[in-house]
Amino acid sequence: MHELGVVYRNIQRADRATCDALAALGSATVHEAMGRVGLMKPYMRPIQQGVQVSGTAVTVLLQPGDNWMMHVAAEQIQPGDIVVATVTADNSDGFFGDLLATSFKARGARGLVIEAGVRDTQVLRDMGFAVWSKYVSAKGCIKATLGSVNIPIACAGALVTPGDVIVADDDGVVCVPRALAAQTLKAAQTREANEQAKRDQFASGVLGLDFYKMREPLEKAGLRYID
Amino acid sequence: MHELGVVYRNIQRADRATCDALAALGSATVHEAMGRVGLMKPYMRPIQQGVQVSGTAVTVLLQPGDNWMMHVAAEQIQPGDIVVATVTADNSDGFFGDLLATSFKARGARGLVIEAGVRDTQVLRDMGFAVWSKYVSAKGCIKATLGSVNIPIACAGALVTPGDVIVADDDGVVCVPRALAAQTLKAAQTREANEQAKRDQFASGVLGLDFYKMREPLEKAGLRYID
Amino acid sequence: MHELGVVYRNIQRADRATCDALAALGSATVHEAMGRVGLMKPYMRPIQQGVQVSGTAVTVLLQPGDNWMMHVAAEQIQPGDIVVATVTADNSDGFFGDLLATSFKARGARGLVIEAGVRDTQVLRDMGFAVWSKYVSAKGCIKATLGSVNIPIACAGALVTPGDVIVADDDGVVCVPRALAAQTLKAAQTREANEQAKRDQFASGVLGLDFYKMREPLEKAGLRYID
Amino acid sequence: MHELGVVYRNIQRADRATCDALAALGSATVHEAMGRVGLMKPYMRPIQQGVQVSGTAVTVLLQPGDNWMMHVAAEQIQPGDIVVATVTADNSDGFFGDLLATSFKARGARGLVIEAGVRDTQVLRDMGFAVWSKYVSAKGCIKATLGSVNIPIACAGALVTPGDVIVADDDGVVCVPRALAAQTLKAAQTREANEQAKRDQFASGVLGLDFYKMREPLEKAGLRYID
Amino acid sequence: MHELGVVYRNIQRADRATCDALAALGSATVHEAMGRVGLMKPYMRPIQQGVQVSGTAVTVLLQPGDNWMMHVAAEQIQPGDIVVATVTADNSDGFFGDLLATSFKARGARGLVIEAGVRDTQVLRDMGFAVWSKYVSAKGCIKATLGSVNIPIACAGALVTPGDVIVADDDGVVCVPRALAAQTLKAAQTREANEQAKRDQFASGVLGLDFYKMREPLEKAGLRYID
Amino acid sequence: MHELGVVYRNIQRADRATCDALAALGSATVHEAMGRVGLMKPYMRPIQQGVQVSGTAVTVLLQPGDNWMMHVAAEQIQPGDIVVATVTADNSDGFFGDLLATSFKARGARGLVIEAGVRDTQVLRDMGFAVWSKYVSAKGCIKATLGSVNIPIACAGALVTPGDVIVADDDGVVCVPRALAAQTLKAAQTREANEQAKRDQFASGVLGLDFYKMREPLEKAGLRYID
Repeated sequence: MHELGVVYRNIQRADRATCDALAALGSATVHEAMGRVGLMKPYMRPIQQGVQVSGTAVTVLLQPGDNWMMHVAAEQIQPGDIVVATVTADNSDGFFGDLLATSFKARGARGLVIEAGVRDTQVLRDMGFAVWSKYVSAKGCIKATLGSVNIPIACAGALVTPGDVIVADDDGVVCVPRALAAQTLKAAQTREANEQAKRDQFASGVLGLDFYKMREPLEKAGLRYID
Repeated sequence: MHELGVVYRNIQRADRATCDALAALGSATVHEAMGRVGLMKPYMRPIQQGVQVSGTAVTVLLQPGDNWMMHVAAEQIQPGDIVVATVTADNSDGFFGDLLATSFKARGARGLVIEAGVRDTQVLRDMGFAVWSKYVSAKGCIKATLGSVNIPIACAGALVTPGDVIVADDDGVVCVPRALAAQTLKAAQTREANEQAKRDQFASGVLGLDFYKMREPLEKAGLRYID
Repeated sequence: MHELGVVYRNIQRADRATCDALAALGSATVHEAMGRVGLMKPYMRPIQQGVQVSGTAVTVLLQPGDNWMMHVAAEQIQPGDIVVATVTADNSDGFFGDLLATSFKARGARGLVIEAGVRDTQVLRDMGFAVWSKYVSAKGCIKATLGSVNIPIACAGALVTPGDVIVADDDGVVCVPRALAAQTLKAAQTREANEQAKRDQFASGVLGLDFYKMREPLEKAGLRYID
Repeated sequence: MHELGVVYRNIQRADRATCDALAALGSATVHEAMGRVGLMKPYMRPIQQGVQVSGTAVTVLLQPGDNWMMHVAAEQIQPGDIVVATVTADNSDGFFGDLLATSFKARGARGLVIEAGVRDTQVLRDMGFAVWSKYVSAKGCIKATLGSVNIPIACAGALVTPGDVIVADDDGVVCVPRALAAQTLKAAQTREANEQAKRDQFASGVLGLDFYKMREPLEKAGLRYID
Repeated sequence: MHELGVVYRNIQRADRATCDALAALGSATVHEAMGRVGLMKPYMRPIQQGVQVSGTAVTVLLQPGDNWMMHVAAEQIQPGDIVVATVTADNSDGFFGDLLATSFKARGARGLVIEAGVRDTQVLRDMGFAVWSKYVSAKGCIKATLGSVNIPIACAGALVTPGDVIVADDDGVVCVPRALAAQTLKAAQTREANEQAKRDQFASGVLGLDFYKMREPLEKAGLRYID
Repeated sequence: MHELGVVYRNIQRADRATCDALAALGSATVHEAMGRVGLMKPYMRPIQQGVQVSGTAVTVLLQPGDNWMMHVAAEQIQPGDIVVATVTADNSDGFFGDLLATSFKARGARGLVIEAGVRDTQVLRDMGFAVWSKYVSAKGCIKATLGSVNIPIACAGALVTPGDVIVADDDGVVCVPRALAAQTLKAAQTREANEQAKRDQFASGVLGLDFYKMREPLEKAGLRYID
């Protein structure tokens, strides 16, 4: 977050297969599997509904009202990447629209996560280019000041290092550090494996109170039932 | 809002037929029929579109980041209830997801109104479980601290007593006190009965100025037309 | 914004053909064509998706919780107008619902832009009446205090003079002053004409860095690539 | 929160001595003594610094932009009361200024807690009239619509019943239900009694880790120290 | 708000004596005297306490993160002016600090009202340079893009035309159009003249209910007293 | 931000003399010297006025409503440190009060920067313990869930690595990476050295337009003066 005017070209991306396998698990399960850290703030909202993706992070640090670095970032995209961008100050301007989306898509990007604004949202939905942003705004940007590409950034409360895995869906965006990707995938898959059994139990009327054996600890904590 | 660690088991629910009849009238008409009180703040948003429900309130007071009481609440649900939950401090965590929804649905709940976050939103939409929340967040919760179930709560600016009627749709969430349910239904139905006639008049070009006879009071209030 | 209790009846509307032609260009292109001014704050959100309109502004200044002036405004609507309303203080109340929409539509209004709340949103969507608002709220209004109709207003950060052109879509709402409408249309059309060529270039893998010849200015600005 | 147009004249106030003794303990200690409930949202800020008061609640439900009920409430004030007011919708208008403060002070009020705006703040500070509010705004109000006085209200997330004890200082505002005032005072005093001893220990360098014997539970929870 | 890259040099300022006399009346009284319009949003807060000023508006339209126009504006300041600035998008950057304040002060400016951030706040307080802003932020700006000076702007919800009178104090900021300055002063003075008499009445225990003869209209409106 | 349940004991702190020298320069100058990065969001506000400090960062990652890790952090404090804390979700609870402040002070801490709430603010001011926080809230915390101490965190939009230099004053909080501390100090001192000369020029009436030779670039950018 502190180096300005630099572009790191050779970042180490998380293992592709691991990264790709995380998509199916979704942000909630992945976030739990990590011990409930790494989630971006809930103001990061999808412009589309029902899309669930994962990808390796290419990071961008922008200046307010200036999207020059988005063009610099485009060149650093490899197939399977998700671009993750933030600004040095809160800014709702539209840093990204259909032209950049066309370029990002041509490079193989799977989506954009940006703590700022985007525009041409209807066209983006039509193109099937997935975006999570803090704002939607028609306002365009200038190209005058340097930021950086592929430095560690703080995006919407999460620390994102280039090459980390990003998992995003309707519930939000989670960042899995590259070094933790494999173990997170394993933990998430284990978690997921138990879900259907639980779902069946709950659907049949079994209560979480009994399923999770909560009655005793609740009583011990002092819970009183009053008729 | 002040008793911690208690669960009231025998709450008095509003009359079922009255409660159910209120759904068709919608939050705007019901809120008007009550004299324009009882509405929750507009930050309570549906995760789905086009759903309009009513139900009797089962209330939950939660602690930040802790959804233990949601499991306790599940047992208190009866068919036709809507669970209404708030937290002792503003908190965006996801207190509710598809497993709890499966459990609530099995108990007969018609929906959830929560001044906090929910997750698994796409699954909830697919399940047809209706939710109004302040946040959407993939972040999960611990189960460590007591709150309460079925005490009066202040949820999103509305005072909700267990057994009150909750009416919710795309416009928001309104709480009708049990004691006022019958008279509110009557007032709302009367209001509704006049709507179609008004709509026809307005569609034909009659102005509200004339229909409501506003020209005189406006002139009296000093309105000046300038050509 | 300063005259209370007045209705200007004879406003000068922007040229109809110019106004109508701006709709197809959308808020982002129009806003760029104006030099990146005139955009309303991004908290003005559509209640529908995929609608893109333009119209001439009829302005309304309201008082908190009071929608009397909306009825006064209805009479001033001419076919092709968009009503633009704000309140003297931030207020989420629902100043507009299906009855007013019926009336506005009968008068030929193409939509409503309101820095406040609206209700009956599902009905409005079903009616095809386009709305951009700051809030959605079931809460109704009284009719007790005068505001004004067709005075210049500051709406969501934009200065709107009656008769200006309003262009609104999923990306937001932009106001084009009447005097600038023709030149803005021309500039926007020129802009638009170049877009498809650019899109084709980007889709084929050409980078913005090369297309816009950014490499030299970036180097001059001091951008460093690190391997 | 649901009855409109009513004034309850004979409310039961908490015991005066108990109420008054709570002031010295402050909002943080009182709130802890209640089990960490009853606190208003932190957006309720004092307009002055260093004032710590307690008083019995006279409640007011207002309509947006309308302070008629503040005048009605003035008559219900008894010495030792604190007026607690909210609005049916979020509203920043200045519902209270130096004239009402003069009136409230003459009736013996110790302060005002209002989930809305106040004005004449410099005069209020000079008068020594304590106020906690959500907003400061020069905007005045009309007197046209009924609200209520001395009904239970939801104010800034807390449920306040007329006669409850309000404790307010620089840290915020807490509401102690009348029925819990005596036991809360006792619990708070016990808490307070231990504070000085703790403070001395901590000042001498003893760590909370040792003082509260946290090392074992932390280890058990899995905390790892890395050198 | 729509012309970019222009500086109007010969603006018509409100009459100096009228402008200066408005300071003593304060934002609340002036705002009432105007019929309760012209007030900026309450997020405009003073960085100092207890300062009450008036001045003629020199307006500035800025671009996000760019304070070039503040330097251009400095040259347009005449003694007795207050600079009023806004940005084309919400931006918290610090557009103004002690150097610009020194320059503005040397030109005779009485203060700054800015819908954005300022810095060096402690130095500004020490210098006695009065500021009302939306944000405080240490972040500096670039000088790359044109805005405008002395065009009409929408600042914090108020429409400000160059030469209008700005009245600001602890309660907020109000804009009085040049054409209304004289009548507003007169109305405000009349209002003020009655205040002391009212204050004496209220201090002696007379209620607003009686002083303003509200009992009858309240009864007529349906207010019920319950013992 | 991703490792939970760990405490790094041997962090590398920035050079003490360099760290200490940065205090006198203030957040605005230091932030400029770094190239306008590293600043926390402006919602981080001091609870006191006129305090300007620097210190080496001890970082804390907390869970919502749980301040257990603050006690763990206390032991890691060395004289000259500033504790920098954030929470895994936005949370206004009071994680810090006078007892922890007494403990932190005894360990030699110079202040606390916390993206959450604090309480006992009046006592903290009296103690002279400097705090920058997002919220003030009387609400206390439990001690049940692990976070981490001395891992890199994203606090209020800034990436903070343990041992970095924190500079905080009335304008905000800036983080200087340990590796950049020396060069930042030098750049800031150079900047500062020029300030007095500039201030004298501006005080004498010289305009920034002339001092910075802006007239030519402004003209080139197309600025037009209109009389």
